[in-house]
Amino acid sequence: MERTDGYGDPTKVMVAVNESSLKGYPHPSISSRSAFEWTLSKLVRSNFSGFKLLFLHVQVPDEDGFDDMDSIYASPADFKSMKERNKIRGLHLLEFFVNHCHELGINCEAWIRKGDPKEVICSEVKRVQPDMLVVGSRGLGPFQRVFVGTVSEFCVKHANCPVVTIRRNANECPQDPVDD
Amino acid sequence: MERTDGYGDPTKVMVAVNESSLKGYPHPSISSRSAFEWTLSKLVRSNFSGFKLLFLHVQVPDEDGFDDMDSIYASPADFKSMKERNKIRGLHLLEFFVNHCHELGINCEAWIRKGDPKEVICSEVKRVQPDMLVVGSRGLGPFQRVFVGTVSEFCVKHANCPVVTIRRNANECPQDPVDD
Repeated sequence: MERTDGYGDPTKVMVAVNESSLKGYPHPSISSRSAFEWTLSKLVRSNFSGFKLLFLHVQVPDEDGFDDMDSIYASPADFKSMKERNKIRGLHLLEFFVNHCHELGINCEAWIRKGDPKEVICSEVKRVQPDMLVVGSRGLGPFQRVFVGTVSEFCVKHANCPVVTIRRNANECPQDPVDD
Repeated sequence: MERTDGYGDPTKVMVAVNESSLKGYPHPSISSRSAFEWTLSKLVRSNFSGFKLLFLHVQVPDEDGFDDMDSIYASPADFKSMKERNKIRGLHLLEFFVNHCHELGINCEAWIRKGDPKEVICSEVKRVQPDMLVVGSRGLGPFQRVFVGTVSEFCVKHANCPVVTIRRNANECPQDPVDD
């Protein structure tokens, strides 16, 4: 049986996380980390047993693995080991969040899915039915938004639960705001 | 000195509330009540000293008072007493939320502003700097949205803090979803 704070089932907070576009795996992106830290400091606070965090990491198939290969010709075995490698990298990313929760004694789950992040996040919300979804946002201006699109905007419109969008702090912004 | 749960200043949650369009003052709209109840059950839970709720009610000048007058010709004194009456009605609405908080021992503040709700909410966020803003939403479909516009969509885009939009439960929806 799960622990609670005596106020019914823990509040299930799904947090969508991704890797840093600058440093790659296993580093979380600045916006994922902001979202996680906000959740801990502003929602969970001292009430460790009142919340359960659900970390979802979506891997984008297009970005899978070719970066560290010399040729795009590869045997089926190569593909298999590549897939394994990516899975392991994704797990290392999730480890960052899961370890923090374990240190604090906060109940959590974490998993990886492949696909278009915005679509997958919304379909996982439908499946898992969290009480709320927390997504980080790069806080792009309208011009950058047109070309990059934002996962957070899509989720606010389409996710089947309350959504909190956490913007990156201005002082944590990399040179190109599209990064990370 | 304010009480806290030992994890720094309480998390300041601004909740925008309005009156029922069907029942009028002092009844809160269904979506305001949903937003409030969600905040208590999913965020605050048992951690009463870890949160401070800030209730903002925006009165729309256009909707002010003519409804219960026989003529639009009125003396300055009439206008003054009308203004007073509306202020008192707004206070009765806020009483609903403040009393609930007092019963639970949750710190809160409540105030009234006049103007366009979406603009006023965003400017009050800038002034008060809450940790998050909670707004109820009527969950209108795209067709209704075009004609009615939604305060929640505007706030998600423009408010200077994380925003949670809480949709009304389907079973609480009045016949005309634009109501309440």
